[in-house]
Amino acid sequence: MKIDGTPYRSVWLDAEDRTCVHIFDQTKLPWSLVRLDLRHQDEVAHAIRTMQVRGAPLIGAVAVYGLVLALTRDPSNESLESNAAMLAATRPTAINLVWAIDRMLRHLRPLPPAARVEAAYMEAATICDEDVATNEAIGQHGLELIREIWSAKQARSGNSGAGRINVLTHCNAGWIATVDWGTALAPIYLAHDAGLPVHVWVDETRPRNQGALLTAWELGRHGVPHTLVADNAGGHLMQRRDVDLVIVGCDRVTRSGDVANKIGTYLKALAAFDNEVPFWVALPSTTIDWTLEDGVRDIPIEERSASEVLDVQGLGADGRPTSVRVAPDGTPAANPAFDVTPARLVSGLLTERGRCAASREALEAMFPERA
Amino acid sequence: MKIDGTPYRSVWLDAEDRTCVHIFDQTKLPWSLVRLDLRHQDEVAHAIRTMQVRGAPLIGAVAVYGLVLALTRDPSNESLESNAAMLAATRPTAINLVWAIDRMLRHLRPLPPAARVEAAYMEAATICDEDVATNEAIGQHGLELIREIWSAKQARSGNSGAGRINVLTHCNAGWIATVDWGTALAPIYLAHDAGLPVHVWVDETRPRNQGALLTAWELGRHGVPHTLVADNAGGHLMQRRDVDLVIVGCDRVTRSGDVANKIGTYLKALAAFDNEVPFWVALPSTTIDWTLEDGVRDIPIEERSASEVLDVQGLGADGRPTSVRVAPDGTPAANPAFDVTPARLVSGLLTERGRCAASREALEAMFPERA
Repeated sequence: MKIDGTPYRSVWLDAEDRTCVHIFDQTKLPWSLVRLDLRHQDEVAHAIRTMQVRGAPLIGAVAVYGLVLALTRDPSNESLESNAAMLAATRPTAINLVWAIDRMLRHLRPLPPAARVEAAYMEAATICDEDVATNEAIGQHGLELIREIWSAKQARSGNSGAGRINVLTHCNAGWIATVDWGTALAPIYLAHDAGLPVHVWVDETRPRNQGALLTAWELGRHGVPHTLVADNAGGHLMQRRDVDLVIVGCDRVTRSGDVANKIGTYLKALAAFDNEVPFWVALPSTTIDWTLEDGVRDIPIEERSASEVLDVQGLGADGRPTSVRVAPDGTPAANPAFDVTPARLVSGLLTERGRCAASREALEAMFPERA
Repeated sequence: MKIDGTPYRSVWLDAEDRTCVHIFDQTKLPWSLVRLDLRHQDEVAHAIRTMQVRGAPLIGAVAVYGLVLALTRDPSNESLESNAAMLAATRPTAINLVWAIDRMLRHLRPLPPAARVEAAYMEAATICDEDVATNEAIGQHGLELIREIWSAKQARSGNSGAGRINVLTHCNAGWIATVDWGTALAPIYLAHDAGLPVHVWVDETRPRNQGALLTAWELGRHGVPHTLVADNAGGHLMQRRDVDLVIVGCDRVTRSGDVANKIGTYLKALAAFDNEVPFWVALPSTTIDWTLEDGVRDIPIEERSASEVLDVQGLGADGRPTSVRVAPDGTPAANPAFDVTPARLVSGLLTERGRCAASREALEAMFPERA
């Protein structure tokens, strides 16, 4: 992704100082683009917990660099295990985090401590490069999907003109949620670049407003036409036939195709199902938790601070970031951060290997090595 | 409803000056309780348009007083008709507004202009008194419903204890949305006062946050336990069996039982249906539009200003009401204010005459005079 012409990833090693990991502080976006320098695994853990970085693929990649930094200080078995456990526990729902740390452990455990640092740097770079390639592949498969839906819409509308292809997305599964490209937004960027008249309905995604703050910013920077709506509006838009396709990212998919994603995703899936709007979930296969079957029952749902509901962040009248309290003093609030969309509501999954149904059979056919 | 021990209605005539109509400025709640003095029909229209008063039953009652004020200046036929038309057009979705103005017209047209002012005052008072009685009756019927659901929950839970009865509501259909009592909240107040352990999940109701600002305030003042949640959370709460009942108000119901209510209601109805949670709609019969059949096709949906999505109102760090901008500069936003829940998703309607199914047959059986 380019920002003002300069290509960036969402996490990268400093070119001159390998003990410094850079991220953009996403709690400061879109108001300012603040690069952070992370030099210690505890800073990395803090960045993940406080959502300075978020997005399932990205927190996996950043956590991996946390482990790298830990090993530069102490490559012992004890350090490897304890820092891996610490980093894997920073957030509970996204499985990419656990996957990425496990991959590092499997790679590094057999090595003598003295060989671990170099190996860790190489494996971390590989994980990041793979994430980029994976997301680009998801984008290409999603582009085909968008082309098909657009062609069908044109065929239906005949001479009256099909107007535009309206895609609704929830939360942010863009390049800033991954190392690059994004998952749900990758097909949208490619479709826009290919000249398809794509327009995106951006759910604001309360309580943290990742849609309004991050997705609207990403799409705006890339020049993709988009319109912000309250999370409440999606059902109405679908009833009015103003949505041709829903694409969302996800934080964990069970082997049967149940999808954990940002709170509110389930409501959009219900509305899509009720209105026969295709509902697609974009994911790298690292988001699949092959150990779980029933997502509603088994995926742990993070409960975050009530203050995220009670205090809304934004830009004040003086043009500086601030927050406002949106409920009376003493109002209790609950803040589940994710929900689970049952596979029966999902039209399909967009993975780096292509499209498949949200079912155990289809997932095992696409990833036979896990069957 | 009492505020700090003093009984209030949401609209009332000044005790000494009959040319002054009082309302509370709901755009100032819950931060301050500001009583407005409306002395001209244009002030009344402005109060409705800017949502200083809102809630389908209340805007009907307030509009009626706008007509009364107009007639005190000029009781001619022309004044009656033009002011009625002006007031009826202040907002498009809630039908109570049209109903109330029509009732006034039918009552006043046959009278000589000289007799209209006194007759208008009397009819306006009757409309308000009827709204209060109607809502109390809705509350009593809803109380029975809550008792039944609570008994069933207790029976299911056996010795483990049923805990509490969890009711989810969207937007504000409390006393401040009516002349008194409220519609959806009337049963909740009565259940709480009757000693039932009712707990309310309060949807914040973006973009204008009537749930966070008004419902949380009302429930807090009355001492009803409640928890604020983002609009996105309701589906997850229902999946987890944390909702026993949904009750919402509404702005217009077609004769076949389709329900227009605050944007986002349809999403909650879908989730309730998917999880077999009872979904009830509370309404005075004045909310029924007997001329419409298909709500999705025929109910006009108000599109409000993008600024309601882009700027969130609340209390700033200095304790004063202010707003923050929640999206990048230049972000377009759409703001449909209502959506329509098809009758098939509605468990039942709570009216002043009792409960009935959301169907043409049931509505005509309950209101045979309209069949």
